[in-house]
Amino acid sequence: MASSSSFSTYTLHGVTVAPKAMKCYKEFMCNYMNIFMKKSVQSKSTSVFTDLTHSRLIPSEKSFKLEQTMRLSPRGIQCHAFEVENTPSFLVGNKFQLDDVIEAQQFNRDIPNAIFEVAHEMEMVEKNSPRSQILKGYLMATLFYEPSTRTRLSFESAMKWLGGEVLTTENAREFSSAAKGEMLEDTIRTVEGYSDIIVMRHSESGAARRAAATAGIPIINAGDGPGQHPTQALLDIHTIEREIGKLDGIKVGLVGDLANGRTVRSLAYLLSKYQDVKIYFASPDVVQMKDDIKEYLTSKGVEWEQSANPMEVASECDVVYQTRIQRERFGERIDLYEEARGKYIVDEDVLGVMQKHAVAMHPLQGLMR
Amino acid sequence: MASSSSFSTYTLHGVTVAPKAMKCYKEFMCNYMNIFMKKSVQSKSTSVFTDLTHSRLIPSEKSFKLEQTMRLSPRGIQCHAFEVENTPSFLVGNKFQLDDVIEAQQFNRDIPNAIFEVAHEMEMVEKNSPRSQILKGYLMATLFYEPSTRTRLSFESAMKWLGGEVLTTENAREFSSAAKGEMLEDTIRTVEGYSDIIVMRHSESGAARRAAATAGIPIINAGDGPGQHPTQALLDIHTIEREIGKLDGIKVGLVGDLANGRTVRSLAYLLSKYQDVKIYFASPDVVQMKDDIKEYLTSKGVEWEQSANPMEVASECDVVYQTRIQRERFGERIDLYEEARGKYIVDEDVLGVMQKHAVAMHPLQGLMR
Amino acid sequence: MASSSSFSTYTLHGVTVAPKAMKCYKEFMCNYMNIFMKKSVQSKSTSVFTDLTHSRLIPSEKSFKLEQTMRLSPRGIQCHAFEVENTPSFLVGNKFQLDDVIEAQQFNRDIPNAIFEVAHEMEMVEKNSPRSQILKGYLMATLFYEPSTRTRLSFESAMKWLGGEVLTTENAREFSSAAKGEMLEDTIRTVEGYSDIIVMRHSESGAARRAAATAGIPIINAGDGPGQHPTQALLDIHTIEREIGKLDGIKVGLVGDLANGRTVRSLAYLLSKYQDVKIYFASPDVVQMKDDIKEYLTSKGVEWEQSANPMEVASECDVVYQTRIQRERFGERIDLYEEARGKYIVDEDVLGVMQKHAVAMHPLQGLMR
Repeated sequence: MASSSSFSTYTLHGVTVAPKAMKCYKEFMCNYMNIFMKKSVQSKSTSVFTDLTHSRLIPSEKSFKLEQTMRLSPRGIQCHAFEVENTPSFLVGNKFQLDDVIEAQQFNRDIPNAIFEVAHEMEMVEKNSPRSQILKGYLMATLFYEPSTRTRLSFESAMKWLGGEVLTTENAREFSSAAKGEMLEDTIRTVEGYSDIIVMRHSESGAARRAAATAGIPIINAGDGPGQHPTQALLDIHTIEREIGKLDGIKVGLVGDLANGRTVRSLAYLLSKYQDVKIYFASPDVVQMKDDIKEYLTSKGVEWEQSANPMEVASECDVVYQTRIQRERFGERIDLYEEARGKYIVDEDVLGVMQKHAVAMHPLQGLMR
Repeated sequence: MASSSSFSTYTLHGVTVAPKAMKCYKEFMCNYMNIFMKKSVQSKSTSVFTDLTHSRLIPSEKSFKLEQTMRLSPRGIQCHAFEVENTPSFLVGNKFQLDDVIEAQQFNRDIPNAIFEVAHEMEMVEKNSPRSQILKGYLMATLFYEPSTRTRLSFESAMKWLGGEVLTTENAREFSSAAKGEMLEDTIRTVEGYSDIIVMRHSESGAARRAAATAGIPIINAGDGPGQHPTQALLDIHTIEREIGKLDGIKVGLVGDLANGRTVRSLAYLLSKYQDVKIYFASPDVVQMKDDIKEYLTSKGVEWEQSANPMEVASECDVVYQTRIQRERFGERIDLYEEARGKYIVDEDVLGVMQKHAVAMHPLQGLMR
Repeated sequence: MASSSSFSTYTLHGVTVAPKAMKCYKEFMCNYMNIFMKKSVQSKSTSVFTDLTHSRLIPSEKSFKLEQTMRLSPRGIQCHAFEVENTPSFLVGNKFQLDDVIEAQQFNRDIPNAIFEVAHEMEMVEKNSPRSQILKGYLMATLFYEPSTRTRLSFESAMKWLGGEVLTTENAREFSSAAKGEMLEDTIRTVEGYSDIIVMRHSESGAARRAAATAGIPIINAGDGPGQHPTQALLDIHTIEREIGKLDGIKVGLVGDLANGRTVRSLAYLLSKYQDVKIYFASPDVVQMKDDIKEYLTSKGVEWEQSANPMEVASECDVVYQTRIQRERFGERIDLYEEARGKYIVDEDVLGVMQKHAVAMHPLQGLMR
């Protein structure tokens, strides 16, 4: 049976520091878990929230803004204690792993699974059901310094499907004081006063990490220049598992511009968490995968191979993952660009040599000239 | 008395294909009708939803995404059966006419009337009344490849007044992967996964039709290049009827740039649905109304006349409808542009010769140089 | 005890003209007051709404759009009468002072205090509490002809925290028919049909006043070119009082570009409402504070001083208020620009000479070159 200890009282009176993600994400998880757990067999007495509560007592790297929390939830987080069979996998020991989502290597292999489980439950939410209001009262700011309609709308859609609200900026670089010499950190300090979570796209590698170091609320990196795009990698992993049926033991060919594609960088990091994965890099010489990723894979014992032959890679792999080849990366050498477009783009010939069960994944860009 | 047959059960178990507009629009109509019908005399036993249900069994041109419907409404559409006196006029036989709103010629003369009737009911909705939540849970994406503050905000305002939510993009062409060579069709495939309906403005004629051919959700054309602007034409017809008191037998003068004005094209198509309408075209030579419209009107038996004298037209008509004259259409011939501005713009002189009951309609643009 | 007279009935039947702010703001105040007053001692029988009601009978400068009001609130404003000890300070006699917020000089010293009191109450609103829905059903349009992420999101965040909805435009000048020669007045006439209140940023001084002269709904000036930025000044006054503990008797140094900084103009107007304030102007010669402000201050008996020495000003003042120095204001004279940047920017040296209790206020811009 569920214990009667009161989680909310405990957090209200006893806590002065906490991982910042708690503020928004935890309340979401409380609501979510309350619903989800009703369907589960509840047999053991390990409380997920005992662990969560403990983690709140571990000093965060960042000082926690108690004042702001009080504004958001003056009565503490409204959870009821209950018991679950196992500690959820997004908790490692008593540490909460999702303060910010900055880069793919921050995840162990359990975190994506835990996220996909929540995602699957959320997909089942019915329009106008009580669960469709699970994020009611929460505000997400989408701070896009580079425009990206598809990525921005995907976050905003998710928020609104679950009852949350959005503050949106379509092109913050051009349309803001960034043009007037305002530092990213100062913008973040301002916008965190307006919202519960910030989803951010930026043109500079490392921008998301800088934002996270400043913010007292969670930051989700929706792409930072040539750096990373961890949520895209999560989605790609999810798609691969759904299409191929497994992640351990798969062979993945990354084809195209691997030097400037942040999604392939994040994907390579994430694939390294699985067993017996083999990665093939097939790219024009001028835009090869950078050494930091290759060294990381080697250090993690992940097999990888640089190939000059995309057709051969395609015939070997379970997944052929295309990135866009951009003309501007080739400078004056239009001839090299044209050659790359001819050779490193997944077309009918490439599809023709792929195995029957294999899949091609494409960003839907670069199809028109 | 209302019959007790359960519409929702029927749709849940029996249907695999349906016109796409059903998903969003029909549920709206269900809610709307439930309210509206309470005020009506209910004497005959023709059920509107019998017809609607039949139409769902007619295979759509597009394969219906059952999976997506299930997500949106896993329990089927929540309607209660009831009886109404007449089949609503937006149903022609058992076909539903508003899957997409792409061009004015898709309407018969009954559809605008049915739409205006709903619009009139919606105008009466009180703030914070139950009916102000009639679109709660629905998401509309406004995908504007060309910016247009007034048009975009009008759709968004309507959605929000009725409790719906909006995903917005102010300038999708500049701010999206369209700049990276992404095909419209692929963007539509992505955005339809986020939303229940897409309102779209595009710079190319025919873009709305291409989007509608791809999408499994309804597309509303809010202007596609020099093509059409059917919702503006609906609104114009509504305004004319309200101001003049009738549509049959009216005389309408279209004045200005008729070659590049999509609203005059849509309006001409729509006016052709009414009896004894006469249309005058008064424009500079270089921007005359195109032949396709003239031929369409002739084929429908609508009287029209090309006039070189806007003053004469103004003195004849019930409605003088101005379109903006754009300098860039005249190329090097600034002299012709200046002449056109002098002659084909509705000013005090034109207003002076108009009949007392007549009205001028103006886009509010081109007033400043 | 509370009287039983029905305010709502009175307004429904008796009123045909009213200050425009009533429509949105008053209903908010009704809701707010109902909550607030429950906590207050209610001893005298002066009804705030008696006064408000009277003011509704005073003909407004602008003709009131009854039709639109009916749409927004067909049953009249839903207030219950009650008694309060004193007439709220935002009422002067029986005149309502906040139809529009256009310029700082429209306020007396009581209005900011009344606004801060409401603001303080709103800051205490708990997520998902009934009071977090106090603006439910209301639509605010943010019409930004110049982009400003921080300012726009601050208004939108406030609206959404209190349950209201937003129609947003990030860059109306570039993305609208303003580029097609549409007059501001016509845009305002259109957008006021979509929303309950308009927050506007524009590049031209006086634009907000023009909008307010046109609109039947309240206009809030969120900055009009080099004109004013009254809500920023309100916030600045609020910050000064919170940090210094008083407003009467303070010494404020305005440092930087004072010719083009609208915030310093609004702040100077607002400071003139307080007793024994002294203002120092420290700026490069080419961007000195304009004479209209100096003359206004003199006419109101406010002491001010032009200083060539920012260090001396800093050592004298309670508040050192920095405005951004913009390169483009110096034309060809890059040497003067560099000199100004060296001398008129609050840096560690300036902070070093400031008194212990004094504070520096900075727009967070111009820190990067």
